[in-house]
Amino acid sequence: MDLRSGCPINLSVEVLGDRWSLVVLRDIMFGNFRTYGDIHGHSLEGIATNILASRLKRLTDEGLIVAASDPGHKQRTIYSLTEKAIALVPVMAALGAWGVRFLPASPQFAARSIALDAGGPAMWADFMDELRHLHLGAPAPARSVLAELERAYRAAADAADLHPSASDD
Amino acid sequence: MDLRSGCPINLSVEVLGDRWSLVVLRDIMFGNFRTYGDIHGHSLEGIATNILASRLKRLTDEGLIVAASDPGHKQRTIYSLTEKAIALVPVMAALGAWGVRFLPASPQFAARSIALDAGGPAMWADFMDELRHLHLGAPAPARSVLAELERAYRAAADAADLHPSASDD
Repeated sequence: MDLRSGCPINLSVEVLGDRWSLVVLRDIMFGNFRTYGDIHGHSLEGIATNILASRLKRLTDEGLIVAASDPGHKQRTIYSLTEKAIALVPVMAALGAWGVRFLPASPQFAARSIALDAGGPAMWADFMDELRHLHLGAPAPARSVLAELERAYRAAADAADLHPSASDD
Repeated sequence: MDLRSGCPINLSVEVLGDRWSLVVLRDIMFGNFRTYGDIHGHSLEGIATNILASRLKRLTDEGLIVAASDPGHKQRTIYSLTEKAIALVPVMAALGAWGVRFLPASPQFAARSIALDAGGPAMWADFMDELRHLHLGAPAPARSVLAELERAYRAAADAADLHPSASDD
């Protein structure tokens, strides 16, 4: 990679500043989608197959994910986050909170970001511990932030179903 | 803009996810460079004139900066951050802290990000107040975070000059 400067904000933009890398990392991190098929099949944004393949390769090259073959299914590749990617939780929280406040986020999809922002650094640390368990084989922590975020999403989705007009605010 | 989904992380990536937008905002935010010439002349990354012009237009279209003509110099345009851009301070802090930890940041340029990360949310709030003063005409706050960041940068630059080999760690 041809680095433009040694400024850490610039370097982060050089690695993450494109239209898809952070979105693919979001799906692995928050959805626990671990295979090409799962990521593609659950993509909210309808990522194209060739773009997903090129992003997974680039994220691997950057040391943000590692690929391993599924022990029960040799042809299938399982992707795991590295510590470098897990450490992006505060970046995801900050981007999500900003998007909720300034962009036309839907109430259901905003619910996880609102919960993660409200939880602050203590929740981010617990979430990173949970991700280290799921991706790096660390011991399971007592708290599941993923379960809490899923409940927040469900509650917002149920509210939108009960009061459909409120979901368009 | 053709929005891919209502997920706030995706929306933030749609607005900010390119190779230059956050870097140009960084220069206006941390360098207080307010004109095309100042941003271009001080660019660490040597941004090309046509790219800078197109980014300034896009940031204006997105409501992240506003352009006004310089009262003393009618041909010259002064760019100011909006509240939407000032609210990116936590995103800049998180990206900078991540870049310091995982990417080959230079010690001098890392110093501002290290200070901003160490200061935490209280410092970010004070920095946003200072930016509201510089860009939105709000009253001047007692604390200048920009001055603190400049001192951190100077101290790191002086240390690198005294111990040149240490700057390559």
